[in-house]
Amino acid sequence: MRATIIHAPGDIRVENVPAPKITASTDAIVRTVAACVCGSDLWSYRGVLPVAEPQPIGHEYVGIVEEVGSDVSTVRPGQFVIGSFVASDNTCPICRTGYQTSCRHAQWVNGAQAEYVRIPLADGTLVAVPEQPAEDLIPSLLALSDVMGTGWYAARAAEVKPGSTAVVVGDGAVGLCGVIAARELGAERIIAMSRHASRQKLALEFGATDIVTERGEEGVARVKELTNGIGADSVLECVGTQESLHQALQSSRPGGNVGFVGFPHGSQIEGQELFFSHVGLRGGPAPVRAYLPDLIDRVIGGRINPGKVFDLTLPLDEAAEGYKAMAERRAVKTLLRP
Amino acid sequence: MRATIIHAPGDIRVENVPAPKITASTDAIVRTVAACVCGSDLWSYRGVLPVAEPQPIGHEYVGIVEEVGSDVSTVRPGQFVIGSFVASDNTCPICRTGYQTSCRHAQWVNGAQAEYVRIPLADGTLVAVPEQPAEDLIPSLLALSDVMGTGWYAARAAEVKPGSTAVVVGDGAVGLCGVIAARELGAERIIAMSRHASRQKLALEFGATDIVTERGEEGVARVKELTNGIGADSVLECVGTQESLHQALQSSRPGGNVGFVGFPHGSQIEGQELFFSHVGLRGGPAPVRAYLPDLIDRVIGGRINPGKVFDLTLPLDEAAEGYKAMAERRAVKTLLRP
Repeated sequence: MRATIIHAPGDIRVENVPAPKITASTDAIVRTVAACVCGSDLWSYRGVLPVAEPQPIGHEYVGIVEEVGSDVSTVRPGQFVIGSFVASDNTCPICRTGYQTSCRHAQWVNGAQAEYVRIPLADGTLVAVPEQPAEDLIPSLLALSDVMGTGWYAARAAEVKPGSTAVVVGDGAVGLCGVIAARELGAERIIAMSRHASRQKLALEFGATDIVTERGEEGVARVKELTNGIGADSVLECVGTQESLHQALQSSRPGGNVGFVGFPHGSQIEGQELFFSHVGLRGGPAPVRAYLPDLIDRVIGGRINPGKVFDLTLPLDEAAEGYKAMAERRAVKTLLRP
Repeated sequence: MRATIIHAPGDIRVENVPAPKITASTDAIVRTVAACVCGSDLWSYRGVLPVAEPQPIGHEYVGIVEEVGSDVSTVRPGQFVIGSFVASDNTCPICRTGYQTSCRHAQWVNGAQAEYVRIPLADGTLVAVPEQPAEDLIPSLLALSDVMGTGWYAARAAEVKPGSTAVVVGDGAVGLCGVIAARELGAERIIAMSRHASRQKLALEFGATDIVTERGEEGVARVKELTNGIGADSVLECVGTQESLHQALQSSRPGGNVGFVGFPHGSQIEGQELFFSHVGLRGGPAPVRAYLPDLIDRVIGGRINPGKVFDLTLPLDEAAEGYKAMAERRAVKTLLRP
């Protein structure tokens, strides 16, 4: 089959490799209908994470179940499924609290930018769509596999409530999905921090009420101006740098909440700063699995259309260009069709 | 009047000084009925904080209003009052969200270990008890001024809910009050981390269901054993060291919450550790003012008796011994009677 392999930073190739096989009785093999490139895939593409040897890449996918292991009972061949980027059993004590990405048996999905992908713990990980979805829903369903679920978790971790004010730090695909989530959870005012015209436009379409183009201290000051001088009730941190996390904490009102979903590479949080901020802080890899049934309903019902974050669609064989466009910020997010 | 002055680390003296006067029209002068020594007073006593020059000390107090400034309208001379250790206007946008210790006009109260104390922003800071309380209620009412309110905030920040499991890290006065708070907020299981027999006894009396004597990694392992292997729903961090904060984070289940009220001297929180923990973290100086009316009711109604944390009562003139006993861990908390 054709699969995307990262050989080294900047070196993405689509190659012929053996198709994956069932290796555990709880596995499923999914024929990928669509996959995409994640901001986190760019870490190795940019050399932030090392690439020790050529390896398959990709963890966002929708597709048709091709084959299941003997212990799989909740999905069957032929079904159109979506799964989280982390496989989970969905039954352990942690999964039952709704934090499936901390599942005792969690396994990170990999190799999804390919014609087929092996999904471990298929019963706990995959959710079947009631019927074969219309073609135009596929991008939005694909977005649920990571970015929309991650934006949703950012809003939940930031405790967005009806009538509240939310700030979204970061205008990448996750931040834009965070705007959708904040709107769906009832935020009355949604301030998107963005300096890119096309992303501002999408943020406004998704429900942002204000755009702040300033960053850092100036960005914080602007948010304060817009929030009665005290800061926002909820801040969704969707970047993942020391600076963006600091900006998020400063943009929250005392007693407010920051949800941080940008992976905080080497960030340190000053205990004393957090203490005096009175801000609640929760982060982590989004437990997408917990939200899939609800988010699938919202997509199929036409309430949300997160697939709009894909502004570049390419055949799988052109994955390298998909990475390049994102790395050069010519694209927000690339969808790949095998 | 007689007042406690710290001259240098280890050097506490009770001296004659001029009585405080109204300096702003929003001030009140309170004749102190009882004051006490805070764990945080020991920071300067132990030399953790510098003592540049002799200064008054103490921020926990109950007493009788002696005099009020011309703009004070909610308390009047003769009333028995309790106030927070931070004066707040209780009307600014931040106060209205319930975070009075972040009040825009916040001022830290000081000099309460004395016969009289000046309380700024009296209308926003002081709460009058309906009638002159019985003598045996005074220690518990005094505890509301800081430690009980702080334990309450720890439990609220840790989102203790009915039926949940809570861990209390720290068996000082705040930790012990945290046990009371966790019980009042409905925790079903309350695990107190303590290795002192007398404090364990009080923790059990206050509602702890389990005592864990181990610390650090061993303490975390013991908590996991007691919590289905996943950690507690809520952890109240009432110590304030890098180690205790780390222990608290590790003791929480994914998706649980840590409330940290021990001042985190120089602590650093690893963004990545917090991220993968999925734990919600909120700290800060407790907004005691928000809880005073409710906590006063609970004390007067006999539901809670936090005054039991005072295991040493001394005349004000013996404040130095009160500090020494706490610093040497001969006393949990010292009550001073002018």
